[in-house]
Amino acid sequence: MKASRFFIGTLKEAPADAEIVSHKLMMRAGMIRRVAGGIYDYLPIGLRSIRKVEAIVREEMNRAGALELLMPAVQPAELWQESGRWEKYGPELLRLKDRHDRDFVVGPTHEEVVTDIARREIKSYRQLPVNFYQVQAKFRDEIRPRFGVMRGREFIMKDAYSFDKDRAGLQVSYQKMFDAYVRIFTRLGLEFRAVVADNGSIGGSGSHEFHVIAETGEDAIAYCPTSDYAANVEMAEALPPQGERPAAAEAMTKTATPGKAKCEAVAELLSIPLTRTVKSIVLATDSEDTGTQVWLLLLRGDHELNEIKASKVPGLGELRFASEAEIVEWFGTPPGYLGPIGTKKPVKLVVDRSVAHMSDFVVGANEKDFHITGVNWGRDLPEPEIVADLRNIVAGDASPDGKGEIALCRGIEVGHVFQLGTKYSDAMNATFLDENGKPAPMEMGCYGIGITRILGAAIEQNFDDRGIIWPESIAPFEVVLCPMGYDRSDAVRAAADKLYEDLVAAGIDVILDDRGERPGVMFADWELIGVPHRVVIGDRGLKEGKIEYQGRRDTQAQLLDAASVAEVVIGRVRPAKAV
Amino acid sequence: MKASRFFIGTLKEAPADAEIVSHKLMMRAGMIRRVAGGIYDYLPIGLRSIRKVEAIVREEMNRAGALELLMPAVQPAELWQESGRWEKYGPELLRLKDRHDRDFVVGPTHEEVVTDIARREIKSYRQLPVNFYQVQAKFRDEIRPRFGVMRGREFIMKDAYSFDKDRAGLQVSYQKMFDAYVRIFTRLGLEFRAVVADNGSIGGSGSHEFHVIAETGEDAIAYCPTSDYAANVEMAEALPPQGERPAAAEAMTKTATPGKAKCEAVAELLSIPLTRTVKSIVLATDSEDTGTQVWLLLLRGDHELNEIKASKVPGLGELRFASEAEIVEWFGTPPGYLGPIGTKKPVKLVVDRSVAHMSDFVVGANEKDFHITGVNWGRDLPEPEIVADLRNIVAGDASPDGKGEIALCRGIEVGHVFQLGTKYSDAMNATFLDENGKPAPMEMGCYGIGITRILGAAIEQNFDDRGIIWPESIAPFEVVLCPMGYDRSDAVRAAADKLYEDLVAAGIDVILDDRGERPGVMFADWELIGVPHRVVIGDRGLKEGKIEYQGRRDTQAQLLDAASVAEVVIGRVRPAKAV
Repeated sequence: MKASRFFIGTLKEAPADAEIVSHKLMMRAGMIRRVAGGIYDYLPIGLRSIRKVEAIVREEMNRAGALELLMPAVQPAELWQESGRWEKYGPELLRLKDRHDRDFVVGPTHEEVVTDIARREIKSYRQLPVNFYQVQAKFRDEIRPRFGVMRGREFIMKDAYSFDKDRAGLQVSYQKMFDAYVRIFTRLGLEFRAVVADNGSIGGSGSHEFHVIAETGEDAIAYCPTSDYAANVEMAEALPPQGERPAAAEAMTKTATPGKAKCEAVAELLSIPLTRTVKSIVLATDSEDTGTQVWLLLLRGDHELNEIKASKVPGLGELRFASEAEIVEWFGTPPGYLGPIGTKKPVKLVVDRSVAHMSDFVVGANEKDFHITGVNWGRDLPEPEIVADLRNIVAGDASPDGKGEIALCRGIEVGHVFQLGTKYSDAMNATFLDENGKPAPMEMGCYGIGITRILGAAIEQNFDDRGIIWPESIAPFEVVLCPMGYDRSDAVRAAADKLYEDLVAAGIDVILDDRGERPGVMFADWELIGVPHRVVIGDRGLKEGKIEYQGRRDTQAQLLDAASVAEVVIGRVRPAKAV
Repeated sequence: MKASRFFIGTLKEAPADAEIVSHKLMMRAGMIRRVAGGIYDYLPIGLRSIRKVEAIVREEMNRAGALELLMPAVQPAELWQESGRWEKYGPELLRLKDRHDRDFVVGPTHEEVVTDIARREIKSYRQLPVNFYQVQAKFRDEIRPRFGVMRGREFIMKDAYSFDKDRAGLQVSYQKMFDAYVRIFTRLGLEFRAVVADNGSIGGSGSHEFHVIAETGEDAIAYCPTSDYAANVEMAEALPPQGERPAAAEAMTKTATPGKAKCEAVAELLSIPLTRTVKSIVLATDSEDTGTQVWLLLLRGDHELNEIKASKVPGLGELRFASEAEIVEWFGTPPGYLGPIGTKKPVKLVVDRSVAHMSDFVVGANEKDFHITGVNWGRDLPEPEIVADLRNIVAGDASPDGKGEIALCRGIEVGHVFQLGTKYSDAMNATFLDENGKPAPMEMGCYGIGITRILGAAIEQNFDDRGIIWPESIAPFEVVLCPMGYDRSDAVRAAADKLYEDLVAAGIDVILDDRGERPGVMFADWELIGVPHRVVIGDRGLKEGKIEYQGRRDTQAQLLDAASVAEVVIGRVRPAKAV
């Protein structure tokens, strides 16, 4: 490509609404333009990177045996009513009526449409397994779209859906997609982790998210640096402490803690570590038969409640936080001084694994401005009946796989693999005839990759103060040639044209900047755009048989022999293919 | 591709709602499935053909210097309000509201969005010309979607938009796109014609439609078999007859024609050719200043009024058909016996070129059950003042380019190139600074290709009673290998696998039917699907060193030497590359 025939729309300043670096740089590099909130044009330079991501995704999906098809963006409401999501999905689902007043949606995802295909087309177990995928613009009506392509409303997604005859088959299909995703993100040149994920609202069981690691990531990830364990912090299991519980050493003592309603304040007052304090969290569950049940959850003072984990304690599935009136009624005191000893009414006690291992700890006295110190299980309180993992994992905890200590990082979710099971096939009656001629529901998996989001995530992971630093695989161009005086010097023009032709012939995606801009403007543009390899051709160098090369991450340029520059550049762009 | 790992969804019967052959065959071949009226899934086999069309379109657009970008499907209403189309577009525009109650549309076309890009990005004449294109799913809420992909609601379109600094530049951009379209449809292997088209509702001036020629086409095309002239019948000029008007030979006579209100009936009663009769068509125009004006248009009895042409007669721009009451008031008789002689009130006479050349003709007498025969210009009527081309061209008319006689055919519109001029740039204030530093509106062109429609049109042009006959360029597979007993015979399997590998290595898009179906089922499936080249490998042939080949249009198979079959097949698929 010659720059004079291309469209380059770089900007000096990012617009005021661009909050994060990827949004700013994509705007400034002329990759995207805002059309409406969360809705963007992808200008030619942005689309080039999108197409490169799409090509890698397609190759790996095809290699994994998935079949590409294309489903409509506009979908009839009837299918969503069948699955139950017409009611459940909420305002992120963009609903509309056609000219005949029939209900439709602009698809945010395609489980319903693909299940409809499967139930019509798949009659027999002999047609299974099958995995259909598509690459398509989706719409989710985010309440507050922002961060450019990271949280847009219209975005490009690869979505795949597997159909199997049984759970074992689903596991195989799932693993194939998991492996394909690992290959995809590896080929994209991104640092990423596959993390164990929560089911989310989509339902079903078994799920991994693929996160691009970046300090600015929205999600906290717990991982083990000495193994491949990784999970969303919310999902990572906090193991029970190892060893015996220390023996009681202190007497139980009611202690005045005036105005110290927080564990941190109590620990400071008493000059003890926060890890000796226990916080009391009051939850409630409601039942038509038995009325309201109050629950008391005990966590170590430095730990945080994980509501998802709490909701998995039998009986706590529909938990809510207790009201202040309920707390006063059951504990006789407002929050801040609550504890398991001497409650006004009997409460159900649920004890975090860490707390169950503590001795000589501090709890509230159920009396304003008082705590109890030196509390011990089996002496001051019965041994806990319900012990559970109730808290978020923290750095330094043992890794759940037993292979080291947990560290925390932040990530940007760019992919998701998910075992749906029979959620949709049951709801929509997608059955096949099994080996015994009996109808059975298909076991489904769904597998998404946020194509446009990957661009933002790649930038959040790879940038400097001059602009984007693209991985080679998805850079809009692999090499830029910057001739100094292309319109003035015959020698420069000839050398640049020759190099351009050599690189094109070698299949390198090269742009020749023949716009006639000053060197400063050229360099700033291509550093902002993030082209990985830059070659500068000037009269001065040519006189000495030299051409200048600089990688986007290099701190300074290198002089290469003009005669072999094509060969060297090709070798840098495609190390595996280098001669 | 191996068929066992692919999805083949052929059907014995087409659904009842499939009216035309392409719709039936695309359903039966498993290319598309209906999701809602005019909304389809493209199954893997259908998507393969779509992708091949898209690839050719992209190559030729890029070659012509157009730059691919991607605009959103969901567009804010504000842009459509600026252009005025929010009011004008009518119910085909799918309108919707987002969660914040803001108005949007699902884009049927992208003039507004692209003009918005141009006005923001293009500041100077130095940035012009530029041509942006995209390939994308569009939505038009057709009142009666039908004919499968031929008149769907959601469809894939390539739309391009050129921006130039002046009209001369627009002509150049337009011609580039015209030439690119000729290359595209030629490469697609379709018989097509570029026809002069009407402006349509989009506005502007200068337009060609590209039609795939097919008997089932919706549009009538007038073309000259001995030149490259072609136009929509509505647009083709009917030249004035050559030579002198024949001299009057008959006396004017009032003749009883009881109950003969049509020219055909009058001609039959009087035993004269229909070409001697003249029909009278009464139009009216309304003006606030001068009230209603009645016009009488005279056409030869065998010709048809062309309203578009009539509306171009000065004063007839806002024509309407006269009511029966108006006709009685002005002519003194109801329709059926009207004529230019003896009207009750003076009417404005507009005479078709053919009628102006007639002598001894027959008109209505403005009296029920009577006509006048032997009428002549300059004797019974003054020489006509207003003579115009008022009729549709018919077969045998002189070609407007003077290079032969007109023939008629039918076509399916698959592409449209259009000079918009400054319609959108004026409305949306898309200006640039010209060479003199003065703001000027950009001259725009728009250029569409119906990607999914091309599949239907290709089938309407190429099918037989066994199924589709794809042009090589867009067939879902170029070659199918049908082994007889792939699962039973080692020799067959080995020969089929070897041939498969040789063809894959040569870059041929081949499918090996390893499903284990009976030969009859295999052959029927692949003839229905329309794969251009079929190779049958069987034990009997192999024993004699032979393999069977049959082209989709061939009436019988040929035996080829097994040793050279790959070479021969490659040569048939890619004749230019044959050794």
